[in-house]
Amino acid sequence: MDKDKKILIVGLGMIGASYAEKLHSCGWFTGGISARESTVKKALDSGIIDCGTVDVTKEFVSQFDIVVFALYPKLFIKWVQEHQDCLKSGATITDVTGVKCSVVYRIQKMLRSDVEFIAAHPMAGRELSGIDNRNTKVFEGANFIVTPTPANTQKAIDTACEIGRILGFGNISILSPEEHDEMIAFLSQLTHCIAVSLMCSKDSAHLVDYTGDSFRDLTRIANINENMWPELFSMNKIQLLEQMELFEKEFDRLKDAIAADDIDTVKQMMITSTERRKLFNK
Amino acid sequence: MDKDKKILIVGLGMIGASYAEKLHSCGWFTGGISARESTVKKALDSGIIDCGTVDVTKEFVSQFDIVVFALYPKLFIKWVQEHQDCLKSGATITDVTGVKCSVVYRIQKMLRSDVEFIAAHPMAGRELSGIDNRNTKVFEGANFIVTPTPANTQKAIDTACEIGRILGFGNISILSPEEHDEMIAFLSQLTHCIAVSLMCSKDSAHLVDYTGDSFRDLTRIANINENMWPELFSMNKIQLLEQMELFEKEFDRLKDAIAADDIDTVKQMMITSTERRKLFNK
Repeated sequence: MDKDKKILIVGLGMIGASYAEKLHSCGWFTGGISARESTVKKALDSGIIDCGTVDVTKEFVSQFDIVVFALYPKLFIKWVQEHQDCLKSGATITDVTGVKCSVVYRIQKMLRSDVEFIAAHPMAGRELSGIDNRNTKVFEGANFIVTPTPANTQKAIDTACEIGRILGFGNISILSPEEHDEMIAFLSQLTHCIAVSLMCSKDSAHLVDYTGDSFRDLTRIANINENMWPELFSMNKIQLLEQMELFEKEFDRLKDAIAADDIDTVKQMMITSTERRKLFNK
Repeated sequence: MDKDKKILIVGLGMIGASYAEKLHSCGWFTGGISARESTVKKALDSGIIDCGTVDVTKEFVSQFDIVVFALYPKLFIKWVQEHQDCLKSGATITDVTGVKCSVVYRIQKMLRSDVEFIAAHPMAGRELSGIDNRNTKVFEGANFIVTPTPANTQKAIDTACEIGRILGFGNISILSPEEHDEMIAFLSQLTHCIAVSLMCSKDSAHLVDYTGDSFRDLTRIANINENMWPELFSMNKIQLLEQMELFEKEFDRLKDAIAADDIDTVKQMMITSTERRKLFNK
């Protein structure tokens, strides 16, 4: 990607600010837009952006060749609805949104024909938020998923993949928005639902005195941003409910086997589980 | 605890061998018994025990004042049934078993009156097994639970707590066997059931290319010893099934809220979850 391309990050939260920091440190000219004056000031003071503003103007936005939206999904859609006239003709826009079908097709449908939207999902979220928690190390070795549609050009797909490589992601995949949403419903949304349900199951301040590491591991993500996640769940509802049912079916199979003293089934599930988990060892 | 007390570890797996190593390095005379000649040899060669054998004889066993059983629960019960005549008169025996009610009362009932059994559970298990995976660091800062019954003396309870402190545990608690089993069913057994069910839910070798850290965290313990855990589950079946139902109730509450677009309930569960999880931050 040419170093003379200017990159704008809209939304300077944990992920947006980490994008800005990494791209800036690799030599790109970066701009930032945040709803908060204090965030723009922090980003400028820490030198992760070259220029920034809270005001969305054509003058400011149209200097950028690439625009990365690091906003909650509904805000992202609203931004494009209200401000797409500010974008430079020929610009490529991309995002970091955790759900795809309900965002990608809608944005592509409403977008000016001289601007291209190529969607991406950096799998590097943390149970932290805000510019102060930016951390470019979370990208290292992590997974990056680009989700093109038939409307996308190869050039835009290549640009999205290259951004992933520049950020330091270890593995870059291409999936359709539909495949992405099924995968993410299972790997990320379902696991968050499990952690939240587990934490809501018992109210005892003493649990921490008796716990081993397993409970700690399963509930790390129970520390969850209650403003972002309900939106992600609702925008991927059908897929998420399907994955929840799938998990519950297996959970019930195990429960029934334990209840019936069916040691063979319990053992077989553990063997399958151990076998499959091996692939995930880092 | 006097340094002239001799300590025998029966079972030199991951936990037993870690006990031997730590107690030996702190200056105690340690003996070891394993079913395998090669394990006894390894323990002797690495200097974590002063003497060891595969043969359970009165001559060998009766030299020890304290005996720690680091065996699967059923093997532990069988050992006491078959070999308790080998124990020294006045000896204190303890264990590391992950379930208590179904073990403690049975052992105490059958045990000679001149030997005392005080049960304990070091919450330092790992998804690893065997003497080669011994690691005294797993004890550091971890939780150690002593589960006395009315049949125990204060002296034996103190001895068990002191062993926990010598091993380096950060927090030593006393619970009844019943309280222990409820807590462990929730914190440890349920979490293992969740991890196994999650891993059994989807068969795709590609999942690893799309995953973030949350799925990895939730399934670390899906790498599970299929010989030990079915036994632990079955010996704590009633409590475990109760905790599984409890979790499923909350999981269904969340599922129903997502299905009904009841954002308030989803949000409220996340707030509760985040609030409670704070206690577990290390």
